[in-house]
Amino acid sequence: MARRPRIDRDAVSELTTARLSVYVRCLAQLEAEGQKTVSSHELALRFHLNSAQIRKDLACFGEFGTRGVGYDVSRLREQLTYALGTDRTRNILIAGAGNLGLALAEHNGFNRDGFRVVALTDSDPAKVGGTTRSGIPIHRPESLRELVVDHTIELAIIAVDPANAQHVYDALADAGIRAILNFAPVQLETRSGVATRNVDLRMKLEWLSYHLRNGLE
Amino acid sequence: MARRPRIDRDAVSELTTARLSVYVRCLAQLEAEGQKTVSSHELALRFHLNSAQIRKDLACFGEFGTRGVGYDVSRLREQLTYALGTDRTRNILIAGAGNLGLALAEHNGFNRDGFRVVALTDSDPAKVGGTTRSGIPIHRPESLRELVVDHTIELAIIAVDPANAQHVYDALADAGIRAILNFAPVQLETRSGVATRNVDLRMKLEWLSYHLRNGLE
Repeated sequence: MARRPRIDRDAVSELTTARLSVYVRCLAQLEAEGQKTVSSHELALRFHLNSAQIRKDLACFGEFGTRGVGYDVSRLREQLTYALGTDRTRNILIAGAGNLGLALAEHNGFNRDGFRVVALTDSDPAKVGGTTRSGIPIHRPESLRELVVDHTIELAIIAVDPANAQHVYDALADAGIRAILNFAPVQLETRSGVATRNVDLRMKLEWLSYHLRNGLE
Repeated sequence: MARRPRIDRDAVSELTTARLSVYVRCLAQLEAEGQKTVSSHELALRFHLNSAQIRKDLACFGEFGTRGVGYDVSRLREQLTYALGTDRTRNILIAGAGNLGLALAEHNGFNRDGFRVVALTDSDPAKVGGTTRSGIPIHRPESLRELVVDHTIELAIIAVDPANAQHVYDALADAGIRAILNFAPVQLETRSGVATRNVDLRMKLEWLSYHLRNGLE
């Protein structure tokens, strides 16, 4: 069990959180390989990271390593996992059982180490009562509140049409969901108290297009 | 027609490219509303951006605005669209016609203003010869090279199982694709000369989990 790390909240940006995710993965790999300690320098070399950045980021979480020894791999992984909140499993609901919702429900990264998809909702009566390929049930949108309580759902994913996304967002917030990942390509009016993140798939394509135009690779 | 902007390549990071995407969308909205000029200050206020950052980013593209007037909305949008390479339509192939591939093929952001999905491939003979809901054909993986030439395909999306992702990546690179977006949760061995971008969906969930743990919203 990791002790609660001291977190310098103001210093933790969204980018830091993304790097935290990367550190946890790198440390898990080292741990699986049986490595006990690692220096910021070694971590940087091994995974193509920046050692000064690593030291700065980890200092935000109260971790400074031991001079000449480095960081304890297992302990550091536990602490960062705790900071990320993925030391326990959070249940996920997916709104929308179209191709995207069904794909995400079976997504490996959404069903291990801290996350589990437990339910989908869809307004199509033909889908309600059915399940995904791996057996996750599809419910009526009207049973949202009940599902959230019965399954202790903390996270929701919006995978509905852009035209319905705001309505679904509001219903999820009303049902008590405090963290929402939106895949609908639309700017949602978000609520304070609800962590909301948009997945902007088009922006990734634009980055590639930029590289094609400017011949950067 | 936009003139070719002078680009300070070294100053253009991946983050700048992402902000460029945002600027283009903001400018398109202003243009649709009939606005002719905009200052960095107004752009910042209206879209919750940083005005110093805007000036710095646009200077990388040779755009400095006119003191007291600001930027010409249409011209700036055209120039940034040119820099992003989305002033003409690039054809996309999606490898994998499972739920994810089918969802992405119909994704609105992948089928307008610079992008168009023209073909899918799948190794399942039951899917080959069929089409997506909107009529995009599904081909055998063996016809990749032919497809790339016949349809002038420049971008590819990997939406296959993690176990097959590397093999598919290599085949796409061999077929002459120079920009690849990978949805498979696996670390690909990439080739120089091929712009490669991973979509890490789990990292988005981890960000939300971090917020739930630390009660930040």
